[in-house]
Amino acid sequence: MRRKCCGRTNRKLRHLTVPRPRLDRAGLWDSCSHVRIEVINTGTELTLGNTLNTHGAWFGRELFKLGLRIERQTTVPDGEAIREALSESVSRADAVIVTGGLGPTSDDLTREITAGVLGIELMTDEAAIRSLEAFFAARNKAMADSNRKQALVPVGADVLPNPNGTAPGVYVPPRLNGKGNAAVFLLPGPPRELHPMFREEVVPRLRALAGVEAAAGALELKFTGVGESDFNQAIDARLAMVPGLEYGYCAHIGEVDLRLIGDETAREAGRKIALDEFDKFLISDDGTSLPEAVLKLCRARGWKLATAESCTGGLIASRITDVAGSSDIFTHGFVTYANEAKRDVLGVPEELLKLHGAVSEPVARAMAEGALRVSGADVAVAVTGIAGPGGGSEDKPVGTVWLAWAVKGGHTIALRQIHLRNRKDFKLGVSQAALDGVRKLAL
Amino acid sequence: MRRKCCGRTNRKLRHLTVPRPRLDRAGLWDSCSHVRIEVINTGTELTLGNTLNTHGAWFGRELFKLGLRIERQTTVPDGEAIREALSESVSRADAVIVTGGLGPTSDDLTREITAGVLGIELMTDEAAIRSLEAFFAARNKAMADSNRKQALVPVGADVLPNPNGTAPGVYVPPRLNGKGNAAVFLLPGPPRELHPMFREEVVPRLRALAGVEAAAGALELKFTGVGESDFNQAIDARLAMVPGLEYGYCAHIGEVDLRLIGDETAREAGRKIALDEFDKFLISDDGTSLPEAVLKLCRARGWKLATAESCTGGLIASRITDVAGSSDIFTHGFVTYANEAKRDVLGVPEELLKLHGAVSEPVARAMAEGALRVSGADVAVAVTGIAGPGGGSEDKPVGTVWLAWAVKGGHTIALRQIHLRNRKDFKLGVSQAALDGVRKLAL
Repeated sequence: MRRKCCGRTNRKLRHLTVPRPRLDRAGLWDSCSHVRIEVINTGTELTLGNTLNTHGAWFGRELFKLGLRIERQTTVPDGEAIREALSESVSRADAVIVTGGLGPTSDDLTREITAGVLGIELMTDEAAIRSLEAFFAARNKAMADSNRKQALVPVGADVLPNPNGTAPGVYVPPRLNGKGNAAVFLLPGPPRELHPMFREEVVPRLRALAGVEAAAGALELKFTGVGESDFNQAIDARLAMVPGLEYGYCAHIGEVDLRLIGDETAREAGRKIALDEFDKFLISDDGTSLPEAVLKLCRARGWKLATAESCTGGLIASRITDVAGSSDIFTHGFVTYANEAKRDVLGVPEELLKLHGAVSEPVARAMAEGALRVSGADVAVAVTGIAGPGGGSEDKPVGTVWLAWAVKGGHTIALRQIHLRNRKDFKLGVSQAALDGVRKLAL
Repeated sequence: MRRKCCGRTNRKLRHLTVPRPRLDRAGLWDSCSHVRIEVINTGTELTLGNTLNTHGAWFGRELFKLGLRIERQTTVPDGEAIREALSESVSRADAVIVTGGLGPTSDDLTREITAGVLGIELMTDEAAIRSLEAFFAARNKAMADSNRKQALVPVGADVLPNPNGTAPGVYVPPRLNGKGNAAVFLLPGPPRELHPMFREEVVPRLRALAGVEAAAGALELKFTGVGESDFNQAIDARLAMVPGLEYGYCAHIGEVDLRLIGDETAREAGRKIALDEFDKFLISDDGTSLPEAVLKLCRARGWKLATAESCTGGLIASRITDVAGSSDIFTHGFVTYANEAKRDVLGVPEELLKLHGAVSEPVARAMAEGALRVSGADVAVAVTGIAGPGGGSEDKPVGTVWLAWAVKGGHTIALRQIHLRNRKDFKLGVSQAALDGVRKLAL
């Protein structure tokens, strides 16, 4: 079955998606389709807008992999507001995941309020006290008295270890819940503490609760150079026929991710359908990003890579160098924003710039070849275009880009594209196209 | 009074914040402190995690400027789930803001469900029909029949014009609400439609409802090179003494934003306290970002700017070129990741690299001076450091950076810093420090 899904807030794509079919009674998801999950995020910084709440989307994706979905996500400020939201959720849901408010300060009340709402006493967990002491000892610090309350746990609940911070998590199984049938998870707010705890401690318990087979898994295929509507038209009907397969698309700028969920047979059937049609657009089938894939392929070939950027202004280089270990492969980046920079640094002939303008095929080619020559790299990519909002003309409207790729001892390839987007998205879209060209050359 | 606020999910900062004091009965916010606002965001793409819900944080910040705050934010999937959440909110809140589900498709049900929940009939608004027809006519498209339902409005409600899309907004005043005393706003989901509609149509109505004076305003001072805890220690007590001033800090990587809210007298008193202490760290007092401030100052001086980046890998150039019009000022960027690039492109002497290593004061200086010479710019900034996770040593641990700034006809300045962060945050923090150095030189 197809999950409704759309990329960003693109209404056009959204309207291309088909209405969500009813759950297939024979499908994998039937077994846990009754599980109603609610997420409560607590934190005044979230409701004031000082911190963007990324928990909702993160949980949505993680739960999707288990075949589960969020029925409701609620954000409330710190303090007493949690009580009202939690009372409602525990009486309605099968599982409630609460984040935040497990710290040592006076407005960290999640632990106390949860015990109150569920009608369970709190007690100090001795193992948790020892973990806290060990945490501080390892950092040569004395534990403050206020931290002792972090070891308070509802009687009978599980303590979820937190190797990355002081706040242990809490799991209250449904049988302890005096106010409903919900399992309750209390988890720390900071992502670097939350994410590992969720994967280690929460996922196995949710699987058990939902009766999800451990074998059920997810596969993410990343594609570039092809749109969500192409998938809709070409393979949607075939994917929908695969028994036990749930799938969804996620469209980003210059990228579509296809997620396939189900048992191995279903996933592989889905993968085959997608690759039969879109093999040459595949970035990876293991979550590897485009810059990572490019670096991996260049490494396998023993290639060094250089970039010559005008309209992307350094974004291609920055995305490459976001990847740890990129310095083995990426040696030189040139941001030749001014015509003089293209001429003096990359040796683009003045006549080409005068005759064709900076945004032209000959200049893009000369930039790529200049970057290859100056850097001594094995492959170089160049981009020159009009990011806007100013600088467009009738011949070369805002959004026009010339890309070129030069390979040592080979030919130079050039390509014209139009990216009609705001300045930042334009830069991102062009950087995707530039990196994808390197990927294809290094395949 | 001080609003609780913390940057990102930094627990340390969070624990430095003081518990929120009770509202000052004499303060500005007292007049609207009774207004309970709830936000409901609808969209299956949000609960599945395919789209990050940025509405919550955006509304939080916009409402904060009006002295209002979100008491609860709820995210639900498309379709019938909205009914339950809306029923609860309208019986509890003074104002309910709903986003999404105003499109023309069968699962866009916000309009119909709201009318049902509030007990009001829907009718076709003829002016809205004409706007829809004009929207399609301007694009040389015929309007589909399904779009007609976008002109359905609860009887007596206001239609909120949407110049940026097809979905008009709806405002149901409290007197029409048959199920409570809440005002209800229905707004489109896409930010480019939502944001202007909120500012044009919703803000004046909320001000009127809450009795907020139009004169009450907000001021945002951006600082860099100073931490939130410095503000806490140095000026918190004094800010708290200013009558009618509400304030909050928002910490980012390499930046602290101080928001001052109140009437002009209160805001100016707050600004004076902050600048008496932290004047030299001020980026801007009008929301201008650091790259924008740097470009503005360089423009005023008639300076051209060049960058020479190693560890930031092009991020400084990319942040500069995110600003429209940057091509007047920024001409050359060098991403000299490999030692050979530093030597061949920027003319860093081989001996310096051998003797001191790439991450050293002499190399940073030579990079900045080389960038200045090669580019012919008036000012150049260079960074070289160890982003990690690999590459550290006892002498130069991961996080070590040397920065240098060279000015035409002037001296070169160099500075060593340690940025202990993950790779991406390291790059961002170093780029802030690099840009801030240019800002100081161009002041």
